[in-house]
Amino acid sequence: MADATFWQEAQVIFGNRISKKRTDCETHGQSETWFPLTPPEAVVFPETTEEVAALTKICAAHRVPLVGWGAGTSLEGHALAVAGGIVVDFSRMNRVLEVRAEDRLVRVQPGITREALNADLRATGLFFPVDPGANASLGGMAATRASGTTTVRYGSMRDNVAGLSVVLADGRVIRTGSGAAKSASGYDLTALMLGSEGTLGLITELTLRLHGQPEAVSSAVCAFERFEAAVETVQHVIQLGIEVARIEFVDEEIARIFNKMNGTALPETPHLMIEFHGSDAGVAEASERFGEVVAEMGGADFQWATTTEERNRLWKMRHGAYSACIASRPGCMGLVTDVCVPISRLAEAVAQARALIAAAGLTGPILGHVGDGNFHAILLLDRENPAELATAKTVAHDLAAMALAMGGTITGEHGIGLGKRAMMAEEHGQAWAVMGAIKAALDPLNILNPGKLVPQDGEMP
Amino acid sequence: MADATFWQEAQVIFGNRISKKRTDCETHGQSETWFPLTPPEAVVFPETTEEVAALTKICAAHRVPLVGWGAGTSLEGHALAVAGGIVVDFSRMNRVLEVRAEDRLVRVQPGITREALNADLRATGLFFPVDPGANASLGGMAATRASGTTTVRYGSMRDNVAGLSVVLADGRVIRTGSGAAKSASGYDLTALMLGSEGTLGLITELTLRLHGQPEAVSSAVCAFERFEAAVETVQHVIQLGIEVARIEFVDEEIARIFNKMNGTALPETPHLMIEFHGSDAGVAEASERFGEVVAEMGGADFQWATTTEERNRLWKMRHGAYSACIASRPGCMGLVTDVCVPISRLAEAVAQARALIAAAGLTGPILGHVGDGNFHAILLLDRENPAELATAKTVAHDLAAMALAMGGTITGEHGIGLGKRAMMAEEHGQAWAVMGAIKAALDPLNILNPGKLVPQDGEMP
Repeated sequence: MADATFWQEAQVIFGNRISKKRTDCETHGQSETWFPLTPPEAVVFPETTEEVAALTKICAAHRVPLVGWGAGTSLEGHALAVAGGIVVDFSRMNRVLEVRAEDRLVRVQPGITREALNADLRATGLFFPVDPGANASLGGMAATRASGTTTVRYGSMRDNVAGLSVVLADGRVIRTGSGAAKSASGYDLTALMLGSEGTLGLITELTLRLHGQPEAVSSAVCAFERFEAAVETVQHVIQLGIEVARIEFVDEEIARIFNKMNGTALPETPHLMIEFHGSDAGVAEASERFGEVVAEMGGADFQWATTTEERNRLWKMRHGAYSACIASRPGCMGLVTDVCVPISRLAEAVAQARALIAAAGLTGPILGHVGDGNFHAILLLDRENPAELATAKTVAHDLAAMALAMGGTITGEHGIGLGKRAMMAEEHGQAWAVMGAIKAALDPLNILNPGKLVPQDGEMP
Repeated sequence: MADATFWQEAQVIFGNRISKKRTDCETHGQSETWFPLTPPEAVVFPETTEEVAALTKICAAHRVPLVGWGAGTSLEGHALAVAGGIVVDFSRMNRVLEVRAEDRLVRVQPGITREALNADLRATGLFFPVDPGANASLGGMAATRASGTTTVRYGSMRDNVAGLSVVLADGRVIRTGSGAAKSASGYDLTALMLGSEGTLGLITELTLRLHGQPEAVSSAVCAFERFEAAVETVQHVIQLGIEVARIEFVDEEIARIFNKMNGTALPETPHLMIEFHGSDAGVAEASERFGEVVAEMGGADFQWATTTEERNRLWKMRHGAYSACIASRPGCMGLVTDVCVPISRLAEAVAQARALIAAAGLTGPILGHVGDGNFHAILLLDRENPAELATAKTVAHDLAAMALAMGGTITGEHGIGLGKRAMMAEEHGQAWAVMGAIKAALDPLNILNPGKLVPQDGEMP
């Protein structure tokens, strides 16, 4: 618990940009999913790296936990202050600092959202590709090593962050990475910070890699009678090296929800949603090769989204799938799984997931970034029925165990947060203890997002 | 110094695969460049991960340093046992363990070389793209985060390693990464190990990402009158997003050396060596766009390497450039710089490098992976003239400082080793201290490649 001296010192830095109001604390104690309300002791709204560093110093002196907050769109409770302390809301640090079009780089503050960033970049002919479903902040996306629909072509945050400014647990500020395309200079601290979920430092600036807006873009939806055929199509496409920019699977239940919530008239069967980027000739060539695979696999004719508006509508619908699922069943909450398996095991994994969900008697539509071998079951749960949540947790655990048995990972893109920490030893073995040793070295007082990601006392031998 | 008990224990593990013979120690105390002979106390030739783990345990108990050795092709003295101890030569751990063509993955031991790996993969239709000039071992390439001529298209070791087995300083063995295309599960220990230069662990197994052999390949050489035009061509090509698989610069001096050492008849002017990979249509399109830029920049007609043999000859010549430079001047040794700058600063950086070398009165032909903003000056030095070495070190330092001032890095691909440690504080500031803290946490006895990469006592505030 922070004492009076701490509050005085914090107020000197932040004035009225530090709040202990119940509404502020509750807003920053919510999650998008099933975690209980966990309000912090206070919320601060910094405007500069220096303010974050100054805050971290007094937090270290008073042993007060610090938890970063971007857009609050985590599905795993990453930003919940489970050990109390201060939530650092980066919404006022949301500027584009420098566009370096010649180097395809942009320097931004962590609070900017991906949609705001791309709106800002539109006139440059460049864009930032990583697109989790929600309109997340770039700081949060970096902290969780996020990815999205275009990762199959452009990579995840791991591939698209050139460098960071990070406030460490003792208030020192470091810069990682460089403006060069590559470097062999020392430990890759950029990569270490990406996915560290606020446990090693607070990201206060990012240099991101941009890509040229493609000359030609072509999107389509394609229906399949059976989910196996849809998913096997994806396996073939990836194994043949056909260049897709997006290749998304949605099952028959999601198609039904899209029709209900968005007024579409999709056949209520499994679908693939695809997009090609490139030159006119390149897109034509890839579409043709893709079409051949679909025909072999018995898919229906494509429905092309020919105008930009149609295309935007398509991907907006896809990105809104989680909200649509939740809204489709009033009073429900979601538990979303996020396994990622080697592409050769994808069809088998989706089949097992469907079987597990059905056997548990749950409703759990499935969709995913299947080109990466990554898919989600959105388990729709009655808020008033704790037994359903318990069943869902068991299904999520079994799915994660299945992914590990297939040589995959428990989380393709949502991260660990509170929801998957219990599976870390199973995925990483002694490597989890190594993560704990790194955490202890860089945050010996355990003030940065305590209770998350790494082993807690007694959890590892 | 290792004592008698240590030797007895090591002999129990390795029998006659541990050697204190002078010839073995001297072979493993040499470097490819200007570092003095630094023989270790002994060399071991493990055959399994378990043997490496057992050795590491007794080294920890006796405080004996351990230094990994791949193919001995480092240009920065990475594998020299500057604090004594044992060199671990991985040449007997050189097998392909498992080809998983459906997932485009291969599991290998660290001692296999890149050429041996690709020879082994030929029938699969897949290849491993990262190609430093030398026929390096994959373990060494991982430990130094190597890259090469195809990095502009396929990425570096950072992008092409899916997972590792690593023996830690206390003999524990961890596995990092997974067989999935991506993961958001905890700290990215794979990335942390890549480029750690043997200071955090010994890599005993690697899972690598493979790529499909392109349907069409097309290579060419193109001469320019002035180096500025060649380098500016590269900047335009990258900024326009023209998809090159390789784009290499060699200056007029290298052209002269190629003619002398390889019997070619190149105009003795600066050149670009390029390659396109893709479909027939894609390669044709990229070549055409590239040709337009070259014409605008006043480059000469391309000389296409039309057969596979011609193409192999071209890239063999390019990969052999360092050896050719050294051999072109009997009795000389090389000091190779390795700066990497943002692409927008490339022409300026090459011009400054030429000016610095000329002002110092040195011979230093320049070549490089210019599509990444990475280039090398091969400073050719008289072995008997220590003043020349001192001058070369000053030039190397000034070049590195120039790269940092341009927002680049002191090493694009060769790593830090012994040659660039003195510049680490300048590049990384307090981030270098963070690297030191990680090293201390994972190797508290400092037995893994001591004296390398991280700050030594008193070097950081």
